[in-house]
Amino acid sequence: MSVTPARTRRIAFIGLGIMGGPMAGHLVKAGHQVTGFDLFPEPVERLAAQGGRAAASVAEAVADAEVVITMVPADPHVRAVVLGDDGVLAHAAPGTLLIDMSSITPGTSLDVAAAAARVGVRTLDAPVSGGEAGAVEAVLSIMVGGAAADFVEARPLLTALGTTVVHVGPTGAGQTVKAANQLVVAGHLQILAEALVFLRKAGVDLGSALDVLGGGLAGSTVLTRKRAAMVAHDFTPGFRIDLHHKDMGIVTETARALGAPLPVGSLVAQLVQAARANGDGGLDHAALLRGVERLAGQ
Amino acid sequence: MSVTPARTRRIAFIGLGIMGGPMAGHLVKAGHQVTGFDLFPEPVERLAAQGGRAAASVAEAVADAEVVITMVPADPHVRAVVLGDDGVLAHAAPGTLLIDMSSITPGTSLDVAAAAARVGVRTLDAPVSGGEAGAVEAVLSIMVGGAAADFVEARPLLTALGTTVVHVGPTGAGQTVKAANQLVVAGHLQILAEALVFLRKAGVDLGSALDVLGGGLAGSTVLTRKRAAMVAHDFTPGFRIDLHHKDMGIVTETARALGAPLPVGSLVAQLVQAARANGDGGLDHAALLRGVERLAGQ
Amino acid sequence: MSVTPARTRRIAFIGLGIMGGPMAGHLVKAGHQVTGFDLFPEPVERLAAQGGRAAASVAEAVADAEVVITMVPADPHVRAVVLGDDGVLAHAAPGTLLIDMSSITPGTSLDVAAAAARVGVRTLDAPVSGGEAGAVEAVLSIMVGGAAADFVEARPLLTALGTTVVHVGPTGAGQTVKAANQLVVAGHLQILAEALVFLRKAGVDLGSALDVLGGGLAGSTVLTRKRAAMVAHDFTPGFRIDLHHKDMGIVTETARALGAPLPVGSLVAQLVQAARANGDGGLDHAALLRGVERLAGQ
Amino acid sequence: MSVTPARTRRIAFIGLGIMGGPMAGHLVKAGHQVTGFDLFPEPVERLAAQGGRAAASVAEAVADAEVVITMVPADPHVRAVVLGDDGVLAHAAPGTLLIDMSSITPGTSLDVAAAAARVGVRTLDAPVSGGEAGAVEAVLSIMVGGAAADFVEARPLLTALGTTVVHVGPTGAGQTVKAANQLVVAGHLQILAEALVFLRKAGVDLGSALDVLGGGLAGSTVLTRKRAAMVAHDFTPGFRIDLHHKDMGIVTETARALGAPLPVGSLVAQLVQAARANGDGGLDHAALLRGVERLAGQ
Repeated sequence: MSVTPARTRRIAFIGLGIMGGPMAGHLVKAGHQVTGFDLFPEPVERLAAQGGRAAASVAEAVADAEVVITMVPADPHVRAVVLGDDGVLAHAAPGTLLIDMSSITPGTSLDVAAAAARVGVRTLDAPVSGGEAGAVEAVLSIMVGGAAADFVEARPLLTALGTTVVHVGPTGAGQTVKAANQLVVAGHLQILAEALVFLRKAGVDLGSALDVLGGGLAGSTVLTRKRAAMVAHDFTPGFRIDLHHKDMGIVTETARALGAPLPVGSLVAQLVQAARANGDGGLDHAALLRGVERLAGQ
Repeated sequence: MSVTPARTRRIAFIGLGIMGGPMAGHLVKAGHQVTGFDLFPEPVERLAAQGGRAAASVAEAVADAEVVITMVPADPHVRAVVLGDDGVLAHAAPGTLLIDMSSITPGTSLDVAAAAARVGVRTLDAPVSGGEAGAVEAVLSIMVGGAAADFVEARPLLTALGTTVVHVGPTGAGQTVKAANQLVVAGHLQILAEALVFLRKAGVDLGSALDVLGGGLAGSTVLTRKRAAMVAHDFTPGFRIDLHHKDMGIVTETARALGAPLPVGSLVAQLVQAARANGDGGLDHAALLRGVERLAGQ
Repeated sequence: MSVTPARTRRIAFIGLGIMGGPMAGHLVKAGHQVTGFDLFPEPVERLAAQGGRAAASVAEAVADAEVVITMVPADPHVRAVVLGDDGVLAHAAPGTLLIDMSSITPGTSLDVAAAAARVGVRTLDAPVSGGEAGAVEAVLSIMVGGAAADFVEARPLLTALGTTVVHVGPTGAGQTVKAANQLVVAGHLQILAEALVFLRKAGVDLGSALDVLGGGLAGSTVLTRKRAAMVAHDFTPGFRIDLHHKDMGIVTETARALGAPLPVGSLVAQLVQAARANGDGGLDHAALLRGVERLAGQ
Repeated sequence: MSVTPARTRRIAFIGLGIMGGPMAGHLVKAGHQVTGFDLFPEPVERLAAQGGRAAASVAEAVADAEVVITMVPADPHVRAVVLGDDGVLAHAAPGTLLIDMSSITPGTSLDVAAAAARVGVRTLDAPVSGGEAGAVEAVLSIMVGGAAADFVEARPLLTALGTTVVHVGPTGAGQTVKAANQLVVAGHLQILAEALVFLRKAGVDLGSALDVLGGGLAGSTVLTRKRAAMVAHDFTPGFRIDLHHKDMGIVTETARALGAPLPVGSLVAQLVQAARANGDGGLDHAALLRGVERLAGQ
């Protein structure tokens, strides 16, 4: 089902992976002209089959675009794709709006914005939370940093991708809020994991106990959404430890640059790393429970 | 407004402080015959003025009781009041049901239960969460450990005191769940405090940022209830740091006895202690934020 | 070889285990009249075979003693042996000097001293470090708390047991210093373990690297004495993790009572506990290395 | 006093600050032909006055050199000075030996070595410990990574600067060992600080207590060298918190890249950062004590 949006835009979408693929598809469905590029040919063909256009290079994708969206794994990929010799900024026309939806350090977003400004390109950092399911179902939360006017322009596109689209401040602020989000989520998972092992060692009825916790000040979305999986030890992702490890790297590096103390957060980052080192990188982040169990000799 | 309950009970209520005072009052209002005792005369007189009876000693309070409820500050008080030479067990008739609603270590609850069993007294450990407001408004959460039959007998009384009354396992389980609850709450407060300082140092708009966090996997009851106070630095209790420090002592001591690992929980306990050492003991536990700010040199 | 000391004393020695057995033997060799008691008959017979006297009860051991030495595993044993109905204080003559060489919490030492004072018995807390080898070779370090005059009286006995005998303050101070010692040792072992895994992961030549560390500000007795064992993964005790776990319990409990912050110390205590939970309790405490390796997935 | 060394070398010395200035001077005294460059003119003139030569640019310094030594503050400075458009590698003749004595991440040392290899320049990473006093008195410890043959060539120069000159492995190994050294030193300072506050809160005689600790397994070079300053609260540097904070950044970043767990090390890094945030950056790193005191509300 394709609809004509209030305003059809010419969009270049770079990075058509697990997240970017379905997101680009939603923009096509929303009636936009979407030209996709990826290092692998298959997702580009898939987009074309959905009604998008296939580009063979960043240059080709960007050539005619009003809006460029990038969705790549990490800082080095953003630097390569945007700042590289044959990257977005080498080819984008002045006035283009670049929306980087990758999850990276706020510092890189600031570098990208500065380089873009030198060639007349406007930027937003707009990382998402919600994972693959959120991308597929277009129910992502999108945290946007950048100029208010640019946010207003981007909003109609972003609302095709997610249900919560919030402008949280100037350039980099989107990444900062994403980082804070991941810090809190990891903290909640870890402390819940410690509480679960504690309760189980005490021989308490877990179901009743978690009902009580959930009903009071100890309640959390992590508890609501993850308790069944944690009690059952079903760690099918969901959001993988490997990705949360990457995000905790952003958190700790950014906090250090800011001078923000993370006495607990930095320890949690160590425990996420340990989970990965113990082979749990491909499991859902609720598998932090396994790390606590290992410390308990279980 | 006094009502006749399904079954009127003769209750001894020992410990009529900030929590126990209003709780005993609710039992009077519910139509029970409540005889109160406290080390201070004023709360005893207050209960009498509400329709209860005044006792001048534990012995006198317990003499005729079917049910004895104790609500005192900490382990040593429970030991003194229940196990002491002139305590509850020295005077309670065989068959009496002792409901200890104090927040103490599960180990002490087990000691109390063992001593009680030797004189034919049944026991429940039934600590509460919800604080002074919860006691006054009779909306406490009550976590009960002990025999199922005793829980069934106690439930009509406990529902006069709280809205969530859950049997969580055998003797000590109530205390264990209370401890786990306090562990999780402290962890949530601390990680939120770290996130707040992080966000503020980055110059992000706090309101939008916390909206995003609250709407996603980072959401928590702590965030919902405490964000306004934390953003405004209004730390009127609520639940005081001093009490949470006491509770973290129960958590760490119990975890050690169980062999349950608390890598993050034990660090959080240190930070609660540091808050207290820095003069914040009388503030709401959301003042853990001030500790993170101190680490940030603010 | 038996020698006549400057002054022969009548000593009751209670607790003839791995540590107490050889210690009592040294006092016999030093020419003292030593009456031993233990819950097991064998060590008592062994002492008698070395020239000591055998007692069948605490009462019998203490009956005629000028000095009573206790060397038992932990706080509850000290409370039982000293404060119990048929314990040391029930039988010791006024004026007796009680030297408790067990490693326990300073709080228990204070309780013992207070109870002793009520029956005219003087006390010293005199825990040791140096382990079984130190006891056998009479090269213990002995940290003594109590009155200066009592220390002067005890010193000739203690110098038969150790090479470092230091008066560190009033009652409980010996235990406090022992606790601080164990805190620092555990901290040194843990940080060295983290450094070793770090160096090995980087592919550095360990021998040269540890030479450099040992030669500079990073040098420590732990590094000197334990590096070979750690590099070779030879964790024959030495001082067992189980005992260090017990000591870290004293450290954390005492620090909490004092309001002394242990942000790192409490985390180290968790890691010692985890080592034990993973079956390393019987290994030398240098096996904290194995815990870091487990976190590294090794 | 100038001596003729076994072999006089033509050395370019870049970075004549607090460390590099006296180091270059020692090489002049050792009889080498030293051409110095710094961004500030004064230290260059000072070197010339001592018998060195003044260069006005990196290019001029490097033009005729057999050996280039760099001693600059941090990674970005090394990247600029060595890899920059007008840097060392742009001007050094093939066959030159580049000895980078800065303290940086092993990763940057590897990048430098790779870039140097492309232009036929050999490299050693040779960070030092011992601080300003060590540089002035030529008693530094020097940890060298790189090819064995290059180490053999460099050793005569390095022994003019330090008393401990050790080859610890391939490229980057010098930096890795330096990082491990700083990790251990910070850990020792922090745990000693916690022990000191613990002992003082208990009212123990600090002098005797530290004697006992120093004489046993808790002994360390940190204790020996820093105890007087810590007891007296004299935090004149010495080695400044600011520098140790920089070094802990290298430690944590490198450990993350290696997958080496630092549960305690990362927490110590947070406490070093907190010391800096609280205005102690210019104090000796023994001032970690002040951070523990702040947590204690002192």
